[in-house]
Amino acid sequence: MRLLLWTPDAAEDAVWLEHLAALFPRARVRRWSPGDDAPADYALVWRPPADFRWDGRGLRAVFAPGAGVDALLPVVPAALPLVRLDDAGMAALMTRYVAHAVLRARLGCDLVAPSADWATQRAQYDVLGERDFAVGVLGLGALGAPVAGALAALGLETHGWSRTPKSVPGVTCHVGAAGLDALLARSHALVNLLPLTPLTENLLDARLFSKLPRGAHLVNAARGAHLVDADLLAALEDGRLAHATLDVLRTEPPAPDHPFLRHPRITVTPHVAARTPRAPALAQVAAKLSALASGASASALPGYVDRTRGY
Amino acid sequence: MRLLLWTPDAAEDAVWLEHLAALFPRARVRRWSPGDDAPADYALVWRPPADFRWDGRGLRAVFAPGAGVDALLPVVPAALPLVRLDDAGMAALMTRYVAHAVLRARLGCDLVAPSADWATQRAQYDVLGERDFAVGVLGLGALGAPVAGALAALGLETHGWSRTPKSVPGVTCHVGAAGLDALLARSHALVNLLPLTPLTENLLDARLFSKLPRGAHLVNAARGAHLVDADLLAALEDGRLAHATLDVLRTEPPAPDHPFLRHPRITVTPHVAARTPRAPALAQVAAKLSALASGASASALPGYVDRTRGY
Repeated sequence: MRLLLWTPDAAEDAVWLEHLAALFPRARVRRWSPGDDAPADYALVWRPPADFRWDGRGLRAVFAPGAGVDALLPVVPAALPLVRLDDAGMAALMTRYVAHAVLRARLGCDLVAPSADWATQRAQYDVLGERDFAVGVLGLGALGAPVAGALAALGLETHGWSRTPKSVPGVTCHVGAAGLDALLARSHALVNLLPLTPLTENLLDARLFSKLPRGAHLVNAARGAHLVDADLLAALEDGRLAHATLDVLRTEPPAPDHPFLRHPRITVTPHVAARTPRAPALAQVAAKLSALASGASASALPGYVDRTRGY
Repeated sequence: MRLLLWTPDAAEDAVWLEHLAALFPRARVRRWSPGDDAPADYALVWRPPADFRWDGRGLRAVFAPGAGVDALLPVVPAALPLVRLDDAGMAALMTRYVAHAVLRARLGCDLVAPSADWATQRAQYDVLGERDFAVGVLGLGALGAPVAGALAALGLETHGWSRTPKSVPGVTCHVGAAGLDALLARSHALVNLLPLTPLTENLLDARLFSKLPRGAHLVNAARGAHLVDADLLAALEDGRLAHATLDVLRTEPPAPDHPFLRHPRITVTPHVAARTPRAPALAQVAAKLSALASGASASALPGYVDRTRGY
């Protein structure tokens, strides 16, 4: 087995190479370098350079060391099976990130005047505590389903929306366009965990925001391209949205003068909600490689990317 | 049945009187007023004034519309059964308050330089994400047990400590002095939900902080008198503690110049973590009154206060 590896992080790649060589002692593993057009059976690739050659080297499958493959889909030839990670510890990380943002919205600490005295703040928390509050989660896949389940377990009225019908304990699940409107009407906090596809790009726009309860909170931990930046700024300006927590931006890293970075009602984190933990990711890639080497079909692997749906 | 009511909030008391009168149409319910020494069978009291008379009116039991009775114990005569609320919706509120504070500590957003650029912040989050982290919950009663269970369900290594042995799914439970030290040694976030008793007053002091991992986070949502204020300031100063989230203070409301209020590494909320929700509290008091009226013993009621243990 010949295995070709590339991510922009040389130090991390060296660790992966060492582990993969130990796990597959008879395999030949190497990191791609400019001009490497040599044969390889499998490639594990993230953010490949433009001159990375896919065809003509006998590749049988491509692995992504992450959950989102929107950046790989346009460059990996359609004939090559593409397999992403399915969870590998990311769901627990994402759950904690989203739960923190949603609980902050529920508690309302961002909405209480920090300079007010004790009694005034208490009265504000009283009003905030008794207001109607539900959370909606867009996407009920490997990340969205456990996130929605955890929010429901925290006693929050939780709604979920997905392309195909899903069932998550404690979560009111919606599907389709009418289902989306029903979810939005109840989402005092709206969490986006959808895959980025042509159907979901720019979904978080003025039209969608107009269907949320006034003063809703937005949490986007999926992709920056889901969000129309100007529409977010306008919705915060006119009070439709109270706050946004964004782990992803349309361009990363953002320009230093990006209007989100110092906006008083936008919290930005630098795409850290669910970094792939190395050990479970390695174990999962190794298990998938073993399955393929034993004759399994790539399309039967968990995480196999269906190009018609785009994830 | 004659029922006497007093809390400092006249408007809230009026709502309770109305509901109790509707629930017990044959009862005589009234709000205490200065000089009212008339007979009553039961009293529902919070923050009674000094001239509130307990003896000589035939009281058979006293109800507290909250979970903590440390302020009532010194004033309610020992011969009078005292019954507090057991949960009544407070556990869900407390769970969300504590989970927010602990998840913030786990994520480490307070520890990342807000002015740093994207790559620097990412590197800081990487280090924070991979650090060892466990949470310890002091107190595994009606509030502590569900809080600890919820933290464990969020994928956090969770330890709990109680006076008597307890069992909470997913939680490593400790007991006694040696158990406390074992919990403290693992508590990168320490959550206090103990009742305030002579044994627990001033428990959160320099000696206890010295047993925590360096850079630990403190969450106190029980009583201000659990905490030695000066020791907290010193522990934050020397780096033993990284951050404190306090819902309670030794004196409430605090003086406007209280050093906690504008400390950069102390988050103060005005005793709002688990306000008693009116509807379930009313339902619970009504159920307990019905049980007593039907001949049940006060000591058999959930929430009956054992004066030897102090809660």
